[in-house]
Amino acid sequence: MNEIVNEHLFWRKDFHPEDDPVISLANQNEKGFRETQETTTNVLRKLCAKLKLTSMPWHSPRYLGHMNADILMSATLGYIAAMLYNPNNCAYEASTATTPMELEVGKDFARLMGFDTDIAWGHICTDGTVANMEALWYARNLSSIPFAVKKVRPKLVEGMSDWELSNMKIADILDLVDKVQDVWDEVRDSSVRGTGVNQAQLGKWIVPETKHLSWVKAVDVLGLGLDNEINIQVDKHFRMDIKILEQTIEDLAAKKIPILGVVGVIGSTEEGAIDHFDKIIALRKKFEEKGVSFYVHADAAYGGYARSIFLDEDNNFMPYNSLKVQLHKLNIINQDELDWPSQDVYNAFEAVSQADSVTIDPHKMGYVPYAAGGIAIRDKRMVDAISFFAAYIFEKGTDVPSLLGSYILEGSKAGATAAGVWAAHHVLPLNITGYGRLIGASIEGAQRLYDLVQSVEHFEINGTKMRFESLIKPDFNMVDFAFNIEGNKDLEKMNRLNLDLYNLSSYVSGPVYKDDFITSHTKLDYEDYKDAPLELVKRLGIPKEEWDKVHSLRVMRACVLTPYFMNDKVTENYWQKYVESMKGKLEELVPKFI
Amino acid sequence: MNEIVNEHLFWRKDFHPEDDPVISLANQNEKGFRETQETTTNVLRKLCAKLKLTSMPWHSPRYLGHMNADILMSATLGYIAAMLYNPNNCAYEASTATTPMELEVGKDFARLMGFDTDIAWGHICTDGTVANMEALWYARNLSSIPFAVKKVRPKLVEGMSDWELSNMKIADILDLVDKVQDVWDEVRDSSVRGTGVNQAQLGKWIVPETKHLSWVKAVDVLGLGLDNEINIQVDKHFRMDIKILEQTIEDLAAKKIPILGVVGVIGSTEEGAIDHFDKIIALRKKFEEKGVSFYVHADAAYGGYARSIFLDEDNNFMPYNSLKVQLHKLNIINQDELDWPSQDVYNAFEAVSQADSVTIDPHKMGYVPYAAGGIAIRDKRMVDAISFFAAYIFEKGTDVPSLLGSYILEGSKAGATAAGVWAAHHVLPLNITGYGRLIGASIEGAQRLYDLVQSVEHFEINGTKMRFESLIKPDFNMVDFAFNIEGNKDLEKMNRLNLDLYNLSSYVSGPVYKDDFITSHTKLDYEDYKDAPLELVKRLGIPKEEWDKVHSLRVMRACVLTPYFMNDKVTENYWQKYVESMKGKLEELVPKFI
Repeated sequence: MNEIVNEHLFWRKDFHPEDDPVISLANQNEKGFRETQETTTNVLRKLCAKLKLTSMPWHSPRYLGHMNADILMSATLGYIAAMLYNPNNCAYEASTATTPMELEVGKDFARLMGFDTDIAWGHICTDGTVANMEALWYARNLSSIPFAVKKVRPKLVEGMSDWELSNMKIADILDLVDKVQDVWDEVRDSSVRGTGVNQAQLGKWIVPETKHLSWVKAVDVLGLGLDNEINIQVDKHFRMDIKILEQTIEDLAAKKIPILGVVGVIGSTEEGAIDHFDKIIALRKKFEEKGVSFYVHADAAYGGYARSIFLDEDNNFMPYNSLKVQLHKLNIINQDELDWPSQDVYNAFEAVSQADSVTIDPHKMGYVPYAAGGIAIRDKRMVDAISFFAAYIFEKGTDVPSLLGSYILEGSKAGATAAGVWAAHHVLPLNITGYGRLIGASIEGAQRLYDLVQSVEHFEINGTKMRFESLIKPDFNMVDFAFNIEGNKDLEKMNRLNLDLYNLSSYVSGPVYKDDFITSHTKLDYEDYKDAPLELVKRLGIPKEEWDKVHSLRVMRACVLTPYFMNDKVTENYWQKYVESMKGKLEELVPKFI
Repeated sequence: MNEIVNEHLFWRKDFHPEDDPVISLANQNEKGFRETQETTTNVLRKLCAKLKLTSMPWHSPRYLGHMNADILMSATLGYIAAMLYNPNNCAYEASTATTPMELEVGKDFARLMGFDTDIAWGHICTDGTVANMEALWYARNLSSIPFAVKKVRPKLVEGMSDWELSNMKIADILDLVDKVQDVWDEVRDSSVRGTGVNQAQLGKWIVPETKHLSWVKAVDVLGLGLDNEINIQVDKHFRMDIKILEQTIEDLAAKKIPILGVVGVIGSTEEGAIDHFDKIIALRKKFEEKGVSFYVHADAAYGGYARSIFLDEDNNFMPYNSLKVQLHKLNIINQDELDWPSQDVYNAFEAVSQADSVTIDPHKMGYVPYAAGGIAIRDKRMVDAISFFAAYIFEKGTDVPSLLGSYILEGSKAGATAAGVWAAHHVLPLNITGYGRLIGASIEGAQRLYDLVQSVEHFEINGTKMRFESLIKPDFNMVDFAFNIEGNKDLEKMNRLNLDLYNLSSYVSGPVYKDDFITSHTKLDYEDYKDAPLELVKRLGIPKEEWDKVHSLRVMRACVLTPYFMNDKVTENYWQKYVESMKGKLEELVPKFI
């Protein structure tokens, strides 16, 4: 840190030695300067005190809540180093050092997803929400191009019906874009960009019920309207139910309603579930034979970096069996009995390479500071459908994609973010030896936690027996769980108990210093999840009829991002502390519930 | 900096003294740890070298290009302090320290704009582009509410025609929202959010030709389509031509085409022009008497913070004459002859308090590091039209607006940004004694630069006389200018000369160490500006017929954000160096052009 700061200070000082310092030493002794310095110090001390008093201890293994853990030193210091120079990656002119880093990081994303880096493209977004909006922007604008071509160059789509235009494959649309470059402005002005949204032409955007809130926002912001978003129910593993997806597409096609696109989630935010992405891709192939095609997006905001686990040092996606051998051989998975990944999870990660675009958040499993989301697209020609130019960010002689602000949803953006992510990627390669090792440790930690929860026969609280159950064997690194008092068949009562327990295990009960473990929580409602939570409800001793009445389940939600549960000893140590802490809290709570 | 870092390190260490460090001293002596440490240091050194070699010297008065200057120590250190704790302001749970800071900053924005802070609201966005999109999202969704109410509670709008529904005042729409709270979900689902965009119902979005690129993006992203954006020509001061605006509204109303909203720009990005915001407000009032109403947004991304200059220490907007007295008395404007602000500029800033929403970028005139944009809205009830909830960010017992992710366009966002802006606002109050002083110095610097350019009769380059002219007397702190060879009547030749000069004054010619002054440039085309640039073209010695043929003018663009031209001596010193530097470059270039 000191090295970084000193280097920057000398750079400033020595930029033009013949210039006098604008603030001389004499100025620095003036009253006004000293007063401002004092105010600054006072304000910063106040700020630090506030931060220290209430901030969440992401770094501690006691924090098992949101998608947060300790962040990488390289990323934090890389961010700070660049921030002192304050580059703006909107325009290359304002970020000659950090725009190339962002483009390099974008290539890293594309490579990680299995895209061909010669034709793919990627960049950093402020977060996954904006990345998802950008993906929908791609899908929406691209799907209107065939209609625009019909207007400007009808010969090129001669004989095609509106239904056929709505169902053109993305690759074919891009070939069409190539053919109309001479009248591109006219075509673009005749697409959604010019005319605005025409819902009937665009059709339905399909997401799983476990989708992130950002999809609801995106469909609103992009002007499609929630009526045009279809939520597909999840199966008992909390993955999008592929049969229902297939039936839905079938029904829409029968009614000649186009499908704008399908989103598969690689790591749902509430359960860490990994959708069957391979089956989504297979469905598209199957339907394409019947003349029905659509955009496919992988929302891997959460799980994206975990694809590193599957890549060898040459970035090849390893065969299933050798992957398993490697995971144990490299001590990434230390538990002999741990059978991760399942074939389902493996297949899903493999198939991400077939997506049209992928959202990936460095500030989640990339272990870098906020705010850093990202997107990769499989074919950079897609950019034509959304790009812009502005006089003041267009410069002679520069490669076009370095004017990032003209090619993405955002404008001004911190070059420091790119520097932080770039530094992290250079310290930890995006394969099994780098991020794979780090994320592997967190997945193993989650599996250990799951096993430990499941190993508890009964929890005894002053003579009262408690049930303690996990939701599902995690696909990834999240464990949801809940407590119930043995014999209690009242679901609302159980929900209140778990909510109160959460309140005692979070900021709600006061400064976090007092809490021995900090977690998060979530609510699984029938409206979103149908009967998927029922299996856990039953294991907790609540009958089906009660679920049918209440239709809502509260669970604690522990995202095990910490890589520090790396061996039995540490895990056992924290587990004992955890059990003690929970017992203490339950001793306080249970008497109120019996 | 050391104090901040040490305090954080001790906080981490002491969080739970009974926990062993997860990485023990013994671990730190292991080969793997040391290797990673070496790699990290090497990567960071490489990063620093890249930054040092090519970064722009924002801190130096030699940088007169984009909207960049030295940034505030309080903001940089505040950012770093919070970043170490890595809070996420998406959910209060993940940012107990920094979400309250963001809400406080939001209130600061609202107060600065003259809004009633009891009913107004504001927050930080990643940048001005996203803030502008959010404003359009507000305008679009609100304007569809009356139609949704007609569907759900027809009694409430009984007897109103579609035209009347399209022309309801924003305040009346909000009163309507209050009346349908019991069926709000249904109303919202019947608004644009549910049904998607209906262009005919929403109508036209009106912006000046000097609008930022983000408005083109916003109209595309929000699904309205560029066909529904109307660009109003600017006058000779590069401000939106109010007569043309009035005529446009008149014409649309006559054709019964609704007006979704009008944007006034407070500081255009290419010229620093301040639109007549007061006249836009007056126009709305006038048209409301004829039953025509629309949303009004102030795009003050660039100029917003400058409203500080007009506020006294009690946050009252000062009367024109006492403001002028105060500016000189407090030594904010030191030049006796400097007559800033003009009555036009004063009136425009005053009227911003009548806007429905305002974009303001801390990372521009707030002198804080990237990325920090912002928005303020005049009535927090507007939030209902765009807000959402998600299970995992909804928490019992917290005030609703602290779950920022459910109320804004973005999701995850750096709490550190809020801390940086908060610290800056606490050191420099948003009035004449704080930011007013800082920004006042930059405006005076721009005026000095303008005067100096205008004072040059002729530039002599080895016997060749050169003209050297500024575009307009700046409303704000930007000076555009160009050179021509005396007697040259060829506009394209002049444009090439100025472009080459820019190339020699920017990163294009190689590492910026070699350049004595760094500036930016822009192109003023007839397509966007009509004949507004003609006056400068003529002063440079190019006849009207030539402009009519070429219709494009290249100028250098110097954003004088630096506050360091605070007195005649420093300015004179840099001006001499500047003139010498330009002469050197022109000596190299001019022979190629004669």
